[in-house]
Amino acid sequence: MFNFDFYNPTRIFFGKNRLENIDTSIPADARVLITFGGGSAKKSGLIDKVKTILGNRKVYEFGGIEPNPHYETLMKAVEIVRSENIDFIMAVGGGSVIDGTKFISLASHYKGDTTDLLKFGFMPIPLDVVSKVVPFGTIVTLPATGSEMNNGAVISYEHGKFPVMCELAFPKFSILDPTITFTLPKIQVANGVIDAFVHTAEQYITFPVDARVQDRMAEGILQTLIEFGATTVAEPENYDARANHVWSATMALNGIIAVGVPQDWATHMIGHELTALFGIDHGQTLAIVYPSVLEVQRKQKSAKLLQYAERVWNITNGSDDEKIDLAIKKTREFFESLGIKTRLSEYGVTADKIPAVIEQLKAHGLTALSETGDITLEVSQKILENAL
Amino acid sequence: MFNFDFYNPTRIFFGKNRLENIDTSIPADARVLITFGGGSAKKSGLIDKVKTILGNRKVYEFGGIEPNPHYETLMKAVEIVRSENIDFIMAVGGGSVIDGTKFISLASHYKGDTTDLLKFGFMPIPLDVVSKVVPFGTIVTLPATGSEMNNGAVISYEHGKFPVMCELAFPKFSILDPTITFTLPKIQVANGVIDAFVHTAEQYITFPVDARVQDRMAEGILQTLIEFGATTVAEPENYDARANHVWSATMALNGIIAVGVPQDWATHMIGHELTALFGIDHGQTLAIVYPSVLEVQRKQKSAKLLQYAERVWNITNGSDDEKIDLAIKKTREFFESLGIKTRLSEYGVTADKIPAVIEQLKAHGLTALSETGDITLEVSQKILENAL
Repeated sequence: MFNFDFYNPTRIFFGKNRLENIDTSIPADARVLITFGGGSAKKSGLIDKVKTILGNRKVYEFGGIEPNPHYETLMKAVEIVRSENIDFIMAVGGGSVIDGTKFISLASHYKGDTTDLLKFGFMPIPLDVVSKVVPFGTIVTLPATGSEMNNGAVISYEHGKFPVMCELAFPKFSILDPTITFTLPKIQVANGVIDAFVHTAEQYITFPVDARVQDRMAEGILQTLIEFGATTVAEPENYDARANHVWSATMALNGIIAVGVPQDWATHMIGHELTALFGIDHGQTLAIVYPSVLEVQRKQKSAKLLQYAERVWNITNGSDDEKIDLAIKKTREFFESLGIKTRLSEYGVTADKIPAVIEQLKAHGLTALSETGDITLEVSQKILENAL
Repeated sequence: MFNFDFYNPTRIFFGKNRLENIDTSIPADARVLITFGGGSAKKSGLIDKVKTILGNRKVYEFGGIEPNPHYETLMKAVEIVRSENIDFIMAVGGGSVIDGTKFISLASHYKGDTTDLLKFGFMPIPLDVVSKVVPFGTIVTLPATGSEMNNGAVISYEHGKFPVMCELAFPKFSILDPTITFTLPKIQVANGVIDAFVHTAEQYITFPVDARVQDRMAEGILQTLIEFGATTVAEPENYDARANHVWSATMALNGIIAVGVPQDWATHMIGHELTALFGIDHGQTLAIVYPSVLEVQRKQKSAKLLQYAERVWNITNGSDDEKIDLAIKKTREFFESLGIKTRLSEYGVTADKIPAVIEQLKAHGLTALSETGDITLEVSQKILENAL
């Protein structure tokens, strides 16, 4: 097991009827900005409920945070925070709204050029660069990214997607009420299951370091997602399935399975380029890229792939190679069973488009991906060709 | 899954050579009280190392915190905190030192009679009762209780053991360096494995609520403890085994497997009386009581016992009853394989002593134990008789 640090101060309120906790979690005299996305939280009446609970506090609204939230959009919210002296942000949405809110929180008191904050990659922004933020809480409307219980965000700027991490970017609290997610479109539910699955796998199917509790926990999340994935898509109001989906998604990326183990993230990085270039949903890009990464990297990942085959898929017969083959096949079939296509060509991306993806990876310095850095541009190309 | 709240702000520094993190985690002008136990941390040179790292800070020492830390002892430390204006406590030890330090932290600024703090049981002390504490960090020398990453303590007072919980009682940070634990006596290592095992089981072998990730995580901790338990006892300097032991013990009681599920704790409550009356080690009391609880409560716990048999012990043959029988037998054998006896009589406690234990349970109001409250004094008596 590697040495590690762990810290996660986000408070979770999970279950039915938890919205009232907003009132006790935000200072009574706070000036609150509610952030949200395309309007479904508004239409459903959720924003109005939140405003009612906020009572006499001065409340402002900022809607229209788009999927893959864009720097330019978020800076408009930063202007409101600055001009109206906002001292608490209440994010209502999925990963994009929460990620965007993290950026608003970090940027609002930053004195320099706020594009600076996009330049740290996976390195946490040091506390002497950002020392003061606007505290925020979240109400999760889409279980997928885990952003509600971590300190990371991905922000779109020009034609790239940029990771932003900072110890001050943890939500103060997050409300996870599975019933709030009942009205989601099926495709977003399916994308969310895949996102949680690939988050988990990217922290698990790496080289082994004898971190047994972490492995078992990752396997537990994967097994849980496999068990109820089809149900949570097909039966949106099945509370038990959705509750397990919601908590799996949070646990997949709150850092607890990441401690002391290597992490891959190649699939996410390649996937980000597919979203930026072709507008494919984040979850869909993972469903395309991940099976292909496992196929191309099967030798490097063989020890963990075998463990994955045996423990997650209960594959006990056959040679090691056969077990691994079957596990990868089952992974692809699982994604497809949720209604998500797993081939680039099914999204209209043909072989001639691959060089543009490689170009973007190169432009963003993503030339040595994976937990060992062995996914060069050449390997990325192989992964994309294999995913056609 | 039940509704739940989760909050755990303790920062973890895990691995080799992490002591230096003390320096960056404690204010440079802090007046620090180092708390420790019987002296092994002193003799080993660990306390001196800590003092060296603390550098120019004004440092005081308070040794002699006993196993099952006693109120009277801890109040002597409270006096030092008060008279010397201590503003940070550095606990160096196992669960008893850390639990004791939590009480010192809570009691030092409390204006009333500090025995008040023992009266809340498993109900967290409200923040209008204790609103200011002395912050503290921990260096874990004995992996067992998980106290290094939670907000609970058990304090001895007169002839009882009293749970104390408070949201302000989380350590600011905890250093978990497995190599620091290499010199522990084998029996303490074995007790620690059993403590972590029973902590996990008391949050898992309860009635089922379809909390799948929590179940899988609990099973993962139990499997991990089973896999390396004998090794971490027999080979104290086996880093991988000890590192997994240390992290399992922390994960077993940091709240993450507890969310949304019923919790039992009958074994701990009965065990506390055995410690108070007969001086049996905490870990040993669990090894005595837990197999007997499972035997006596097998009907009430049958659904989870079957899941435990199948998933943790891989028992796939036989009737449900046979599977459960074998799982309980294997649990007892596992404890014994660590060198810990599992029968009351092996500790010199005979049938005629059982009424005194029942008397104490009654005196402490522990008349409706377990996750359903169905362990009456009569059932506790049956459990103890069955454990002879």
